[in-house]
Amino acid sequence: MSHPIHTVTHIDAGSHARCGLLSLPHGTIETPAFMPVGTNGTVKGIYHEKVEQMGYRLILGNTYHLYLRPGCDVLESFGGLHAFSSWKHNILTDSGGFQVFSLSKLRKIKDAGVTFQSHIDGSRHAFTPEKVVDIQTIIGSDIAMVLDVCTPPDIDYRAAQEAWRVTKLWAERSLIRRDENGEKFRGCLFGIVQGNFFKELRKESAETISAMDFPGIAIGGLSVGETPDRFSDFLAYTTEMVTPEKPRYVMGIGSPDYILDAVANGIDLFDCVLATRTARHGLLFSDDGPVNITKAIHEFSSEPVEPTCGCTACTQYSRGYIRHLFKAGEMLGPMLATEHNLMYLHTLMERIKNAIKNNSFSVFRKEYLARYYGEKKNV
Amino acid sequence: MSHPIHTVTHIDAGSHARCGLLSLPHGTIETPAFMPVGTNGTVKGIYHEKVEQMGYRLILGNTYHLYLRPGCDVLESFGGLHAFSSWKHNILTDSGGFQVFSLSKLRKIKDAGVTFQSHIDGSRHAFTPEKVVDIQTIIGSDIAMVLDVCTPPDIDYRAAQEAWRVTKLWAERSLIRRDENGEKFRGCLFGIVQGNFFKELRKESAETISAMDFPGIAIGGLSVGETPDRFSDFLAYTTEMVTPEKPRYVMGIGSPDYILDAVANGIDLFDCVLATRTARHGLLFSDDGPVNITKAIHEFSSEPVEPTCGCTACTQYSRGYIRHLFKAGEMLGPMLATEHNLMYLHTLMERIKNAIKNNSFSVFRKEYLARYYGEKKNV
Repeated sequence: MSHPIHTVTHIDAGSHARCGLLSLPHGTIETPAFMPVGTNGTVKGIYHEKVEQMGYRLILGNTYHLYLRPGCDVLESFGGLHAFSSWKHNILTDSGGFQVFSLSKLRKIKDAGVTFQSHIDGSRHAFTPEKVVDIQTIIGSDIAMVLDVCTPPDIDYRAAQEAWRVTKLWAERSLIRRDENGEKFRGCLFGIVQGNFFKELRKESAETISAMDFPGIAIGGLSVGETPDRFSDFLAYTTEMVTPEKPRYVMGIGSPDYILDAVANGIDLFDCVLATRTARHGLLFSDDGPVNITKAIHEFSSEPVEPTCGCTACTQYSRGYIRHLFKAGEMLGPMLATEHNLMYLHTLMERIKNAIKNNSFSVFRKEYLARYYGEKKNV
Repeated sequence: MSHPIHTVTHIDAGSHARCGLLSLPHGTIETPAFMPVGTNGTVKGIYHEKVEQMGYRLILGNTYHLYLRPGCDVLESFGGLHAFSSWKHNILTDSGGFQVFSLSKLRKIKDAGVTFQSHIDGSRHAFTPEKVVDIQTIIGSDIAMVLDVCTPPDIDYRAAQEAWRVTKLWAERSLIRRDENGEKFRGCLFGIVQGNFFKELRKESAETISAMDFPGIAIGGLSVGETPDRFSDFLAYTTEMVTPEKPRYVMGIGSPDYILDAVANGIDLFDCVLATRTARHGLLFSDDGPVNITKAIHEFSSEPVEPTCGCTACTQYSRGYIRHLFKAGEMLGPMLATEHNLMYLHTLMERIKNAIKNNSFSVFRKEYLARYYGEKKNV
């Protein structure tokens, strides 16, 4: 049996929001926690040391991408992704399930596994649940994820049921392979709840995965193109079915409003490329909602993006200068915006944790969103 | 009369190489000095603070680019480029002459000035020598350059003579405008020697520009596509004609071998995009010559790019990881390579200055180049 890895230290009086400590091989993490995404073993546009200085101790890597490039032979020769990338803290890797379904071509799912073509060079590959555990064993992931079958939001019940049947089968086989790998596998293997947008399947999946020998549970198949209301509805419904004893991770959540929604439901971990991807397009988080720094309104502005933020962009540069960097196509624009968005989210998580500890999370959320969605004076 | 701004502190016993102190509005610079290029008010791919931490106190901006974007109205409203870009140290701006001739379309030169079309949007603009001094007055350049007529290496004597005639005329008018601008112009206006690849014209140009009231002299029209031997020949010939009393700046020099050639001839300042541009394509300086980090030979290499270098890339990452970043198209690759090349050149300048002070520059240069051009074991 897996040891418990998550201790809940406080539950908000007015919501399901909770604070906790997550014990991982490369150190303990305070939850709820946002994880920056470092697809290829680097968070795009920012030095590791800056990510570390902000206080992040858990970042994400993508199994699918790392398997294709640099490849397991390179990762193995370096002794895993920590040594290869010089990141000293925890790494979560997804299973590649989502990328196989969103990026690769000609994928075919059978009970044995999935075959697909690389999005890079068209080469053919096969993932089995066992192989995906093995790859993450080589990567040295602190949190590894099982291979699952991801589905779009518009499929029928039968297709969703079939996807969940295979997901469950793969989850069982993943646990067996984890145990077979013994001490070579040093991380924590998380199960993934699926079930598409059918409550019956979501319930069955959440209860089944919760009961299996996973030390942590992810909720997959949300934030895949559905409406915000449907997301919110299914997130709340599914989270309640997942055991509170284990850390709960919802995949693909990274904007302040979605993070607040997830935290309110008792989610402990989330990740998303949104913070870093939109940064590269000039969208910077602020308490007044996202600032589109490329707009003409900022041309002569000597104001910082977000006066309460302690990042390089907000403490050293004006909106006018950062806009200029984006208009001129200068790398420093995306670099500063990336640092800002990650710093902003880290600070937001601190504010959220304080609100939970003060039993004022619901008030905080309401006030935050009123301003976030409110009249935009300068964005 | 302009005050002297450069004090020669030591001349190498076996060459024309010299050390000195260059006094500028934003602090004193040790020479010989390499200047990183920050075309749009940012050195591409690197934070100002890293450029500063390395020890650089003089960077370059491009008048042509800054005039087009963000434009003089923006720069003026921010109080100049120092305030706009938050760079606390010295800035040299070129005159835009080279860019007008290399980037813009439909340029027409008359005695009055040059008209051209923007390479960005095709809009029509005119530069006069007076306007270029005015733009640099708004920018707040510590070193400003006169507008000159740049010529390709293959023109005939008549064309070269005509270009020099206009360059001289513009230099005279630039000085008048500098003086008219009075205290608004806070920098040092440098003249530019032209004359193409005709020694008679080079001599006349060097002597004429040297005798004019410029506190510093640039040698233009070299490193424009000619052979290395021709470059070396004309650099040596021209530099000797330029007064040793003033700081001597050669434009467009940035690889270790060309820098050593320039220093040997008694050049004090140089700039080039090469260090940062080739970095973005994965070419990193080393004592064994440039390392092409994208090559397969580095795939499994846990070695640093240059073991003696103190930059982030060389102290924290392997060749294998940096190669992976480039192959995966990750921004961190160019970011690390840029930092490395600038750090490498800054360290090289320290080694050069020490060699000059020890009267061993010629030995240093010979040994350095033997290894730099020598058998490449691992590049």
